[in-house]
Amino acid sequence: KELALAPAAATFDRAKMEDLLKRRFFYDQSFAIYGGITGQFDFGPMGCAFKTNVLNLWRKFFVLEEQMLEVDCSILTPEPVLKASGHVDRFADLMVKDLKSGECFRLDHLIKAHLEKVAADKKTSAETKADCEDIVVKLDGMTKDEMNGVLQKFNIKSPLTGNDLTEPIEFNLMFGTQIGPSGLIKGFLRPETAQGIFVNFKRLLEFNQGHLPFAAAQIGNSFRNEISPRSGLIRVREFTMAEIEHFCDPNNKSHPKFENVADTKMLFYSACCQMDGKPAEHHTIGDAVKTGLVANETLGYFMARIHLFLVKVGVDNAKLRFRQHMGNEMAHYACDCWDAECLTSYGWIECVGCADRSAYDLTQHTKATGVKLVAEKKLKEPVVVDVVEPIINQGVVGKTFKKDAKKIVEALNGLEPNDLQQLEEVLGSSGEYELNIDGNSFKLTKGMVSIKKGQKTVHTAEVVPNVIEPSFGVGRVMYSVFEHNFRMREGDEQRTYFSLPPPVAPIKCSVLPLSNKPEFNVFVRKLSQELTSFDVSNRVDDSSGSIGRRYARTDEIAIPFGITIDFDSLKEPHSATLRDRDSMSQVRIPLDELPKVVSDLSYERITWAAVADKYPKFEQQDATKEA
Amino acid sequence: KELALAPAAATFDRAKMEDLLKRRFFYDQSFAIYGGITGQFDFGPMGCAFKTNVLNLWRKFFVLEEQMLEVDCSILTPEPVLKASGHVDRFADLMVKDLKSGECFRLDHLIKAHLEKVAADKKTSAETKADCEDIVVKLDGMTKDEMNGVLQKFNIKSPLTGNDLTEPIEFNLMFGTQIGPSGLIKGFLRPETAQGIFVNFKRLLEFNQGHLPFAAAQIGNSFRNEISPRSGLIRVREFTMAEIEHFCDPNNKSHPKFENVADTKMLFYSACCQMDGKPAEHHTIGDAVKTGLVANETLGYFMARIHLFLVKVGVDNAKLRFRQHMGNEMAHYACDCWDAECLTSYGWIECVGCADRSAYDLTQHTKATGVKLVAEKKLKEPVVVDVVEPIINQGVVGKTFKKDAKKIVEALNGLEPNDLQQLEEVLGSSGEYELNIDGNSFKLTKGMVSIKKGQKTVHTAEVVPNVIEPSFGVGRVMYSVFEHNFRMREGDEQRTYFSLPPPVAPIKCSVLPLSNKPEFNVFVRKLSQELTSFDVSNRVDDSSGSIGRRYARTDEIAIPFGITIDFDSLKEPHSATLRDRDSMSQVRIPLDELPKVVSDLSYERITWAAVADKYPKFEQQDATKEA
Repeated sequence: KELALAPAAATFDRAKMEDLLKRRFFYDQSFAIYGGITGQFDFGPMGCAFKTNVLNLWRKFFVLEEQMLEVDCSILTPEPVLKASGHVDRFADLMVKDLKSGECFRLDHLIKAHLEKVAADKKTSAETKADCEDIVVKLDGMTKDEMNGVLQKFNIKSPLTGNDLTEPIEFNLMFGTQIGPSGLIKGFLRPETAQGIFVNFKRLLEFNQGHLPFAAAQIGNSFRNEISPRSGLIRVREFTMAEIEHFCDPNNKSHPKFENVADTKMLFYSACCQMDGKPAEHHTIGDAVKTGLVANETLGYFMARIHLFLVKVGVDNAKLRFRQHMGNEMAHYACDCWDAECLTSYGWIECVGCADRSAYDLTQHTKATGVKLVAEKKLKEPVVVDVVEPIINQGVVGKTFKKDAKKIVEALNGLEPNDLQQLEEVLGSSGEYELNIDGNSFKLTKGMVSIKKGQKTVHTAEVVPNVIEPSFGVGRVMYSVFEHNFRMREGDEQRTYFSLPPPVAPIKCSVLPLSNKPEFNVFVRKLSQELTSFDVSNRVDDSSGSIGRRYARTDEIAIPFGITIDFDSLKEPHSATLRDRDSMSQVRIPLDELPKVVSDLSYERITWAAVADKYPKFEQQDATKEA
Repeated sequence: KELALAPAAATFDRAKMEDLLKRRFFYDQSFAIYGGITGQFDFGPMGCAFKTNVLNLWRKFFVLEEQMLEVDCSILTPEPVLKASGHVDRFADLMVKDLKSGECFRLDHLIKAHLEKVAADKKTSAETKADCEDIVVKLDGMTKDEMNGVLQKFNIKSPLTGNDLTEPIEFNLMFGTQIGPSGLIKGFLRPETAQGIFVNFKRLLEFNQGHLPFAAAQIGNSFRNEISPRSGLIRVREFTMAEIEHFCDPNNKSHPKFENVADTKMLFYSACCQMDGKPAEHHTIGDAVKTGLVANETLGYFMARIHLFLVKVGVDNAKLRFRQHMGNEMAHYACDCWDAECLTSYGWIECVGCADRSAYDLTQHTKATGVKLVAEKKLKEPVVVDVVEPIINQGVVGKTFKKDAKKIVEALNGLEPNDLQQLEEVLGSSGEYELNIDGNSFKLTKGMVSIKKGQKTVHTAEVVPNVIEPSFGVGRVMYSVFEHNFRMREGDEQRTYFSLPPPVAPIKCSVLPLSNKPEFNVFVRKLSQELTSFDVSNRVDDSSGSIGRRYARTDEIAIPFGITIDFDSLKEPHSATLRDRDSMSQVRIPLDELPKVVSDLSYERITWAAVADKYPKFEQQDATKEA
């Protein structure tokens, strides 16, 4: 892996950012007054508004723009569904326990931390160092036994007590519960939103009038009982996902809108690069698909759209890459997968997965339920196929088997061509055939059934659609955006703020009266109402404190634009100052033009540069007039 | 209760509506291909879009308009939090089990169904009938023993098997789980979103710069393990709530914006009316507060806002009332409560609760954690109060107790006036005082501490804020809106549709080419894109089928406006027809004006009547030109 890149943001002061996030309640640990629970966070007013804005933009960018079918499915999921999807058997992490204290450790994290410590030790031989680094790179793909081998080889103990550890234990990450009062229906909190879409596939296909391709989408919470969550918002037990399942013909993964994004330049870190120790490479997505680096247009289209979306909400283009999963680390359902990763002070973190789940899930649910989850595909040219059909003498069968007759007819109609062939042979040679249904045997004779062979012209074929799945970890995207937009004013380390893009900023505009002079109030209140009617969320700060200090407070909560009502505002023609958070430059604008201008700025219909061009520059409020 | 009103919608064909909801996948049972789970539903594309629109409108109507602090808190909640809130001990329903089959029945529902059957029986005496009706009215407030008495008196058996039943059992409605790998941290899925706000009270107050009143809001899922959920969306195990907690001074529940809503006319069904068997009464909310029917302005303000919101999203004004809880049915935390109830084919159902939770929750969490959840209130006039303070000789205490000194100083500073008084007395008489801290005893002598009494001028007082809580059951609101807006075309019972208000309709506009003539496509695609850029969600239906049939399909999914591109659209000046779902009337509008007009109609900036006035009426497409 590109370990060399990990400490790129070494100068980043995470503690300072976390202080701001906590102090202005963007988010904080849940149930803190009760001592808190690790891996759970509450979003305060600013974090919640930011999240809402990100999700609304997501809905506009993906669901509306692509006319996806958005659904909202249950979180509580009965066991058979997650048994079929493979989560009951395989959705587990390995852990070890401290033999004396019972403390649990996630095994790969424990090994990684231990080996990094060993490698950093000056006394360690070059050979051992190389060994450590090699193991860390391969860790994601290691089996239980291989990891156990590493534990033994390096004689790893509990990092907290030095006690011995248990053998590796598989710990399923799903939260279990019982549904209903009997305690007999076992259920889990869903570990991903995707399954809700798969089990509704038939209804969605029907809603789409039977046509492929189509995409369904879902925004909702999922739950994973992480063994020892740390790393703030990055590894949590409860999180919001935004997932898309694009269903397409397995033999045609072209995308009609691929041309629109083909020129998008992105950073690709392929499985080959990773194995060969080479750095990631820049390509356009068009070239990446053309050269086969990315498997198909649909996968490529979504990767480009993910890239564009992330940059739009504030991810730094220079800290964004797409990393291909290596074969051994792929989830149990995926056949190819690229992660959009953001570079943060925790290293590169996965924010969006973009997997080709092939036909895995639909096939599994079909097996488990007997309900065919398939689509009909129109063939380019009709095909003539051989057909073998049973011709049943319903009268005789009915008379002979009475109430069992229906069952027998169904069973005969359900037989595969091979079985029918065999039935014909046996019946021909012995005059009898034993049909077994659910352990009961029924004797059929020649008069009851015969076999007809022929040919049929077929215009459609059944296909199990393949699924391309972009899956967003909303909290991780938010965290990356926070890091990429955390700023300090030049020359003043105490003045920290977030430079969030206006469309996702929690509040778009502040309205500040220069002082507590009552005459200002009428203007402040009217302006605030007008801004609201232009869909510009705003906050009045009429507390005492200098304008500069109040701007510093609004900068902290990422408000991109600020209006000050001053003495000149009272005179005709009424006007006020408008300030840009990022450049701190100000202009003077007539009051009646302000709401529209701020609305256009907030939703990026115009740029600050254009506004600064059009209106006169403003230097500083003349507070002396107050006297 | 107003039983007489229950069958008001008797002519309503619920099966027909449910057929439409299911067929066009507004919502349906979750995991249906696995046999489904009762009390869980998935929202399909149309239900999900409707829900999103309702929630966005809610956010605009309440959060933005009132500048509330919206938060997004954890669902998984550790036990101590819900122990303090009373849910672990008291959030239970009574059930009985079939002694042989083990089937569970919710006790009150079982009794109600049985007594209604008895009362409906012709052979039942008038006396018994009256008895049955009396019990049904009082059922909500009955204790476990009283209900058991009814079971015995009427000799109630299992309605399914006729078997004997167990004694009533209290069944806690919360879903339990374990948090973390040790299995030692017990948690529950939250049964309401409110507790997340209460445990964050300190941070929210701080965010609001210490000022009261302020309101926090939260939209999110809650979970209740209902004993035997039926009634579709009305009683479910997993549901979305939208809750507001308005924190205010317990001695001042006036509301600055009450005047804005005072004239709102509403239907009140007070506790007195219910007890006296009188019908509900119409009043303005202004009068209701003035006469004391509604306790205070803040409660009244929110009731009026709830009323206005419900009507805005499509609840029928004539089927909406506010019912006051009677003392015996109040939740454990409430001191007064009015429910907004909607009349449906299930009778009157509670859609929004509006409770005065007083200081209950903040007090409970303070008790459980020792963290003071209070606000500082500025007194109108400063008050002089007696103060008793310990004067500690830190030097002597430090030298004598070394590492325990800090603990002792803290303990002394934490003593209540009464304890200090006692300390002074004991120290004065015996020269020594035994201070107990966590089971350890420390001997204090005269040189270490003395007591100072005096007076202090105080400008602020600590108050535990009271909470007014409007709590929306989003699914129930949606269900009521579906029922109130289900329509059949006159003379054609098969043509059913939903007359949802445009702002909450899942899709705002359909775009239909008159036929599959290729020339139409350019216009259709361009128009669809322009509509999207005007925030008008739209759906192209270019399937074959007459215009009338396609309109019937779009009516079914509640699309309020429909555009048809026909042969005249191809000619200059380009124009198209615009159709109104509810009146089925059509006008002809120039193509370049269309997107703006549909956008204004969709967000109720203009009415259909105004559009019909301005543009020429259109009668019918001339499909013959196609030939």
